[in-house]
Amino acid sequence: MIGIALAGYGTVGQGVMDLFQKRKESIQKRLGKKIDICYILVRDSRKKRDIDLYGAELVCDIKKILDDDDIKILIEATGDITLGYKLIKEALTKKKHVITANKAVLSLHLEELSALAEEQDVYLLYEASVGGGMPLIKPLQDLSLHGEIRSLRGLLSGSCNYVLSKMRIEQIPYDDVLEEAKNLGFLEADPIDDVGGFDTRRKLRILATLAFRGKIEEDDISLEGITKIEQEDISRLFQMGYAVRLVAQAFKENQCVQATVHPMALPITDFLRSIDKAENGVEFFGDHFIKVCFQGSGAGRYPTAHAMLSDLEDVLFSLRRKTSPLGSKELHIIPYQKKARYYVRSAVPTLFAIEEQIDEKVWITTPVAHNVLKENLPEGAVAIAIGE
Amino acid sequence: MIGIALAGYGTVGQGVMDLFQKRKESIQKRLGKKIDICYILVRDSRKKRDIDLYGAELVCDIKKILDDDDIKILIEATGDITLGYKLIKEALTKKKHVITANKAVLSLHLEELSALAEEQDVYLLYEASVGGGMPLIKPLQDLSLHGEIRSLRGLLSGSCNYVLSKMRIEQIPYDDVLEEAKNLGFLEADPIDDVGGFDTRRKLRILATLAFRGKIEEDDISLEGITKIEQEDISRLFQMGYAVRLVAQAFKENQCVQATVHPMALPITDFLRSIDKAENGVEFFGDHFIKVCFQGSGAGRYPTAHAMLSDLEDVLFSLRRKTSPLGSKELHIIPYQKKARYYVRSAVPTLFAIEEQIDEKVWITTPVAHNVLKENLPEGAVAIAIGE
Repeated sequence: MIGIALAGYGTVGQGVMDLFQKRKESIQKRLGKKIDICYILVRDSRKKRDIDLYGAELVCDIKKILDDDDIKILIEATGDITLGYKLIKEALTKKKHVITANKAVLSLHLEELSALAEEQDVYLLYEASVGGGMPLIKPLQDLSLHGEIRSLRGLLSGSCNYVLSKMRIEQIPYDDVLEEAKNLGFLEADPIDDVGGFDTRRKLRILATLAFRGKIEEDDISLEGITKIEQEDISRLFQMGYAVRLVAQAFKENQCVQATVHPMALPITDFLRSIDKAENGVEFFGDHFIKVCFQGSGAGRYPTAHAMLSDLEDVLFSLRRKTSPLGSKELHIIPYQKKARYYVRSAVPTLFAIEEQIDEKVWITTPVAHNVLKENLPEGAVAIAIGE
Repeated sequence: MIGIALAGYGTVGQGVMDLFQKRKESIQKRLGKKIDICYILVRDSRKKRDIDLYGAELVCDIKKILDDDDIKILIEATGDITLGYKLIKEALTKKKHVITANKAVLSLHLEELSALAEEQDVYLLYEASVGGGMPLIKPLQDLSLHGEIRSLRGLLSGSCNYVLSKMRIEQIPYDDVLEEAKNLGFLEADPIDDVGGFDTRRKLRILATLAFRGKIEEDDISLEGITKIEQEDISRLFQMGYAVRLVAQAFKENQCVQATVHPMALPITDFLRSIDKAENGVEFFGDHFIKVCFQGSGAGRYPTAHAMLSDLEDVLFSLRRKTSPLGSKELHIIPYQKKARYYVRSAVPTLFAIEEQIDEKVWITTPVAHNVLKENLPEGAVAIAIGE
């Protein structure tokens, strides 16, 4: 018997249990071995729960799981940074394979945990951590191992996409959309992690590190969220043929990396333009292929659980490398310098060369490098890069 | 030592040898074992060759390879249907892993060879068989195993794409482009396999069989090539905002499959529209993701060799399932019935309901099912489905 422990029994944890029960028999048949989720780790094991546990034992002490030699795999679905890190690290140390959706922990500790997993000769898999509904981490690891990846672009926040789509389609002001999104559960009570772009930056940190086979940290990525964008900006740009999105981008030339998260106005021919509502989309460009792209729901119970179950099968059938997927390239991080025309709205005049004046407060600049623009943008001004 | 035999030393075979020599040391280091290409199978081993063999022995009798127990892997790059089939079958029977780029053999014998490989507990891998420059077979096998794939669309012939792009951009008639493409080596002396759509249909047969986990054969796929399309059709449709491409499509609803290869006029928002020149592009739509798409060169020495080397690493590191990737779904093949507006050029009037008359010989129909259109199209008429 191969024992599995599940940490966390919230939205994702219950989804994992649900899909596991549905697929258990088929997996066992192909594997020729029994498998089961034996423990569910929760904060309070005495709390009354109205959810089926499928025979698993509720525990609130990780020690019980770590000391049980029948438990070979930990599925970490707590969503908690401190607890998640502790659980993952201790499980790997005890030579248990780990599957996690915890992007915050990975963003902070990807190198340390990957090295530990390799050292302990166990798997650390995290398909669900970025774009749960897009099967992208595994293909990305393959792509980056077999050839150079030159760049990547993505819409990595379903919440931002939802807000921006809604503002455009229903012509509702930012604050009202935010309020509605909070009420519907699309956004946290404090939505700054999403609309400020921090969540997107965390995901870009993970994807770029895997893609370029060298370390790119959160602080290496310049960041501008969508908090300053108003409905009038979206409407004006839509009339000009563009849709506004929060775009994560990174590219590598020689060993120099430029990475950024900022709002962009995307033309109708752009693949990312078609990513709508709460979806995510990513595209990779490389040497041995031209483009590989993924579109899917960004999160949610079943997309996330499905990604974790895919990882589980790969662990059970030993279908992945146990060596760290991170490379050891010495990358130089330089400011994001790509030039673009910018839509600028500002109460005070700006110093940028103007291509077109839209009204007394809104201009389209001539092409200007992103880092130069950021340094010279007046306080309170909104700048949206115009895609080609 | 893990011995490898290479069958065929033409464009692809030499590319494989070249990349193998470049990566050999890195693979050996990670694997902890020596590997080498020990034999190269050719038709005539005495023929004088001006190419480096890197110490491999030229042989013209497969028996020498089959009887050598040190040879664990055959890389089949002959491009020959009869010989290729014989080599693959005999190697699998002798419990040797097989890597092939031979789509014609796979299209004819996919089920038989997959079953044989599973029975012999060895790998049969063929990343290079469809879209050599796009890493799509491996992700497709994963996607179809973990969830339902509902449909796929693709441009699978670099040659057709080249011809259609050229006719549009340089406004050259079909016959002249064909002549030029033959002279440049983009097309065979008898190009009907490409421009008649037979090559595309073979690739769709393989992709659809993997995607839907049941058998879809070439004869199940309705076929119309690009041979009747003239420069005036392409120009007219371009003025209307469309680019003409040969599109392979298949979709599954319940257990019913519809599959077709026919020319389509693609709007500017269509991902496939951006696939230009001799490129290929494919998109898959599924339940657990929205869309995954691939764009890359369709063939060529290094893209194909690179795909075969990726397979080789997966064999060496045991990173794939040995169980057959084909499913056993009982699929019902029904005629392709999807409705579309059609651009029709015909010397004699047609019976279709007309949405717009372009000139005395050219009409745009109201939406009509593909199978109905095909049955009622006058001899010699050209019909191009208009994408939305």
